[in-house]
Amino acid sequence: MRKHVFFGGKGGVGKTTMSSAYALRCARADLSTLIVSTDPAHSTSDVFDQQFDDDPASVEGIENLDAMEIDPEAETERHLMETKRAMSDQVSAAMVNEIDRQIEMAHQTPGAYEAALMDRFIDVMREADDYDRVVFDTSPTGGTLRLLSLPEMLEGWIDRLAHKREKAIELYERAAIGNNEPRRMMDGDPILDRLRTRKERFEFAGDRLRNDAAFFLVVNPDELSLRETSRAIDELQSYGLDVRGLAVNRLTPEPEDHEEGRGARFLRDRVETEREHLDELRESFGPPVVAEVETRVSEVKGSILETVASELDIDVGVEPASAPE
Amino acid sequence: MRKHVFFGGKGGVGKTTMSSAYALRCARADLSTLIVSTDPAHSTSDVFDQQFDDDPASVEGIENLDAMEIDPEAETERHLMETKRAMSDQVSAAMVNEIDRQIEMAHQTPGAYEAALMDRFIDVMREADDYDRVVFDTSPTGGTLRLLSLPEMLEGWIDRLAHKREKAIELYERAAIGNNEPRRMMDGDPILDRLRTRKERFEFAGDRLRNDAAFFLVVNPDELSLRETSRAIDELQSYGLDVRGLAVNRLTPEPEDHEEGRGARFLRDRVETEREHLDELRESFGPPVVAEVETRVSEVKGSILETVASELDIDVGVEPASAPE
Repeated sequence: MRKHVFFGGKGGVGKTTMSSAYALRCARADLSTLIVSTDPAHSTSDVFDQQFDDDPASVEGIENLDAMEIDPEAETERHLMETKRAMSDQVSAAMVNEIDRQIEMAHQTPGAYEAALMDRFIDVMREADDYDRVVFDTSPTGGTLRLLSLPEMLEGWIDRLAHKREKAIELYERAAIGNNEPRRMMDGDPILDRLRTRKERFEFAGDRLRNDAAFFLVVNPDELSLRETSRAIDELQSYGLDVRGLAVNRLTPEPEDHEEGRGARFLRDRVETEREHLDELRESFGPPVVAEVETRVSEVKGSILETVASELDIDVGVEPASAPE
Repeated sequence: MRKHVFFGGKGGVGKTTMSSAYALRCARADLSTLIVSTDPAHSTSDVFDQQFDDDPASVEGIENLDAMEIDPEAETERHLMETKRAMSDQVSAAMVNEIDRQIEMAHQTPGAYEAALMDRFIDVMREADDYDRVVFDTSPTGGTLRLLSLPEMLEGWIDRLAHKREKAIELYERAAIGNNEPRRMMDGDPILDRLRTRKERFEFAGDRLRNDAAFFLVVNPDELSLRETSRAIDELQSYGLDVRGLAVNRLTPEPEDHEEGRGARFLRDRVETEREHLDELRESFGPPVVAEVETRVSEVKGSILETVASELDIDVGVEPASAPE
């Protein structure tokens, strides 16, 4: 398996269960593992009965496993403050208010949440040198994936901006013969620097996601979840991302053979309907089904988590990253 | 009940079932009823085994009931084309390309979908004079609700724009004494006209939604759905919209008393957990629980729909609109 493993899927399908179970498997296989959660409900803290925050911390009682929880709302706010600060260092005092207003408006758009989260993912991927495996309880979708085309877009901007600056500097130099001051200013241009840094960060992200990450989608055996999964596979693949498997969660348990009555009939009907959905998943979806996990009435933690981990047919062995194109 | 009834809730909770059942109840009570669906999966067509489209059509075999399906993707596209056409009539040929590009970019933002849908809702509400009741299988949320503050925002724009024009016209008139041409141009200003029309449309929508609409939220008896419902109630109420009740769907059926075994135990545990969620809904959510509907394995249509309709404790009697503030 590649170093970065993402578990995607809509809210409520069981991403936390699947990612926690897989991270546990990796840790048990002696891989130094980090699980990264972005669920605002702190579900990873619930699973391991321990409060996690933005810094990786050892999971008590489980060797080789660290966990961290990123709060997406707080990230968006932090991102907003940082962008404001970085921009206000670079423009005249008179423009600061207007720019603040523009940045605030930009942060109210739905894309801001994804941008802030992606920025945090990039930090985690850059700083995760000490880990053999990093498991994410979410996967980039829609708006976040679109950010992967940012490097090309920024490339165009940077080129045009650099070209304009170059011209301006030539004029300055002609006006002040022998004075290299203008060129030195250009070398340290803070806006160009910032754009170049962003471009490099997102290039790094694109490379890691394409060449050193594996994506799994968590599916529930119903019509709606199948449709959403089909869309998510197409979306990930359109960005060159590798969907390795589908983890089916919340299967209805079968009653025992001797059971008869309204309850048993309901369960048997339901199991049959779900089997049809499973067949469809196996036959008309590309990636293989790597887990079939039954609904649990009680929370999945402790020994139930161990059982679920044993039901995942997802490889843990280390697989080197592909070479970037 | 007010004329416009909306059934909101996340994808998959059962909005189509609840709204179809309620529309059926209204029709059976001799109210001329229209059900409006925005589900891209054409679920209303499935429920009534009949293909519906953008124009209201009689539902076969059910007196007093019409149905229509709005395709949100097609609406967004139509909205894009119309905005382009309207704008290109009003600017010089040289600017048309640039404006087209800007409008296309604006339509790729998540808000565009909501704007297009809201525009269509407004059309439906304006044209629904012949109906006693209009039932929507969705409810405005987030981005769509934010559009309700559009009239105030547009008001500011219109005032500033009109003021600038007024000044310009004074100058023109001073330059051409006795010539009223500039003032006549101002009266028919196409951009001001368009802004005023938009403002009036959204004022109309805000008035209808606040004074002649009732909102119900469809909830499933699980943690995630409860959290989402709580957020939706706050959101609707913050826009002064009236949440009248919570319709609980997908309750697990209880096994019969004599049933014993793994299946029966699973069902009983689950029923108990769901009851705790129901208690929470009743005790700590404001709006009353107006329906408790069990999961059906087969599709809800025909006689099952009639049964579900009878399980809804939602009033059908006509209630006059409140006076606008």
